[in-house]
Amino acid sequence: MFLGVEIGGTKLQLGLGRGDGQLLALWRGAVDAAAGGEGIRRQIVAAVPELLAKAGIDRGQLRGVGVGFGGPTDDATQTVIKSHHIAGWHGFPLAAWLTELLGLPTVICNDADVAGLAEVLFGAGKGLSPVFYITVGTGIGGGLIIGGEIYRGVGKGAAEIGHLRPVYPLSRDSGHGEILEYFAAGWGIARAAQERERSGADTAGLRRAAADGPITGKVVAEAARQGDVVALGILDEAVQALAEGICSVVKLLCPRRVIVGGGVSLIGEELFFRPLRRYVAERGMEAFAGLTEIVPAALGEEVVVHGALALARKKLGG
Amino acid sequence: MFLGVEIGGTKLQLGLGRGDGQLLALWRGAVDAAAGGEGIRRQIVAAVPELLAKAGIDRGQLRGVGVGFGGPTDDATQTVIKSHHIAGWHGFPLAAWLTELLGLPTVICNDADVAGLAEVLFGAGKGLSPVFYITVGTGIGGGLIIGGEIYRGVGKGAAEIGHLRPVYPLSRDSGHGEILEYFAAGWGIARAAQERERSGADTAGLRRAAADGPITGKVVAEAARQGDVVALGILDEAVQALAEGICSVVKLLCPRRVIVGGGVSLIGEELFFRPLRRYVAERGMEAFAGLTEIVPAALGEEVVVHGALALARKKLGG
Repeated sequence: MFLGVEIGGTKLQLGLGRGDGQLLALWRGAVDAAAGGEGIRRQIVAAVPELLAKAGIDRGQLRGVGVGFGGPTDDATQTVIKSHHIAGWHGFPLAAWLTELLGLPTVICNDADVAGLAEVLFGAGKGLSPVFYITVGTGIGGGLIIGGEIYRGVGKGAAEIGHLRPVYPLSRDSGHGEILEYFAAGWGIARAAQERERSGADTAGLRRAAADGPITGKVVAEAARQGDVVALGILDEAVQALAEGICSVVKLLCPRRVIVGGGVSLIGEELFFRPLRRYVAERGMEAFAGLTEIVPAALGEEVVVHGALALARKKLGG
Repeated sequence: MFLGVEIGGTKLQLGLGRGDGQLLALWRGAVDAAAGGEGIRRQIVAAVPELLAKAGIDRGQLRGVGVGFGGPTDDATQTVIKSHHIAGWHGFPLAAWLTELLGLPTVICNDADVAGLAEVLFGAGKGLSPVFYITVGTGIGGGLIIGGEIYRGVGKGAAEIGHLRPVYPLSRDSGHGEILEYFAAGWGIARAAQERERSGADTAGLRRAAADGPITGKVVAEAARQGDVVALGILDEAVQALAEGICSVVKLLCPRRVIVGGGVSLIGEELFFRPLRRYVAERGMEAFAGLTEIVPAALGEEVVVHGALALARKKLGG
């Protein structure tokens, strides 16, 4: 039995399981960025007894902890390389800290990497290799899984598709700074909507979908579903940019499947997956045409917890 | 003892060896595209006895044949998927054809893939993993070697860096069609020079370097070495485009080394490798900065033959 922990940019999730795609109990909270590491410590210390009670499990049955962290991690040192979200966690020895906190061996990895592992072991890529997993949420992350193992380059991460730069015509006004996230991540879609508004586009449809709230990625998706032309244009640009990124992945890796998950992918078949596949087919390399399937993720919001548990089982299961 | 065969776009090379980085004998010829497969058959049939005599080896000592082919190949069927160079070789059962021709088990793969394998086993990537090999010659090919094995995606090739599309500002006038080769391959560099000429740029320096011949990639390199400003500008654009491709490779794969070989790489340290490393450092992802070394290839013109021999040893050496 293992404890799986997701420490994301905004959410903290803990789950108990055997690393076999089943959860015996789940605890979900929000990361309080202002409270930093100390806040996360308090949340974990409170959540673990709750989880054990819920699952009817004795603490002594836990063999280890797996963590999916929302940022780059170092395999050799088991540290967080860098954190945009949690103050003081640059170079932070996360595995050692959790071992001390919980008295259990701990292994950490990047959240998108373990999510990819989970999709290959239990989800939309079951039994397939190679698989490239993409999560399009607030940001964009990736994971490359070869033969059921996470590919990690020199051991500090890889598969950073969100940092690829899209090509002309998307890049024509943007110089060198903008990356795929700028167009296709949740924040990128919101940014595009705000820019349309500033430049005097008719954003009545977006406003309606937003009710009195801010225009977010979700709002753009909702307005697009209602046929709003500005929203449809923004989404089209996001899907084009993501397609360019996937074309680069196919040229370099020609995986059997590209699995796309995350909040933005929930826009669904008609407005997201269908145009995505069409753009990839139109702009991809002829020699690899049709070799890579693009499919939605299967595991939903607990995907990183499943991956963290699977990682713990692989590395600590003995 | 194995026979290693390189069937490239322009050259045909055969070598005898144990797949250990040593050649006992080498035969080199030009591919006669007009003569097609029949021409290659005649060349191979003539070359093999010559090679055996030169190395003082009995035909019976040969255990198999490895081939590095200049085009996409299919691992499962051991066929050429497509050939731009050799008429009639689309879907051609190259391994079976050679087995019949030479009476020896044969294994085929893409030429850049086996060249990458050779560099990792015997050259600039010895003992390292992962390694991304790039050959910048007339065209641009790539090979990804993980743990001493060629990465082949779904089994029909991968690592096609020459087909990535460069970003703004290089792509600003080019729409969607142009790929890295358009800027950085030998033919792309020659194209750029011809375009400069047509648009009325001062190409006196290029003309001088060309003597009375055509302006090729080599000519541009020579003129650049002599300080010609137009040639330097063309090379700079080629190196920028290649740097963008390498940045994408690093973001997705973060390999320990990128090894660059091929004729264009022979331009050398000052005009090629130094600016290449600088552009990659300037435009790469901060989290992966400094993790990937960019180094020149070590094995020279026989690299594909070495790789074909190593492939034969791996697959047929038993």
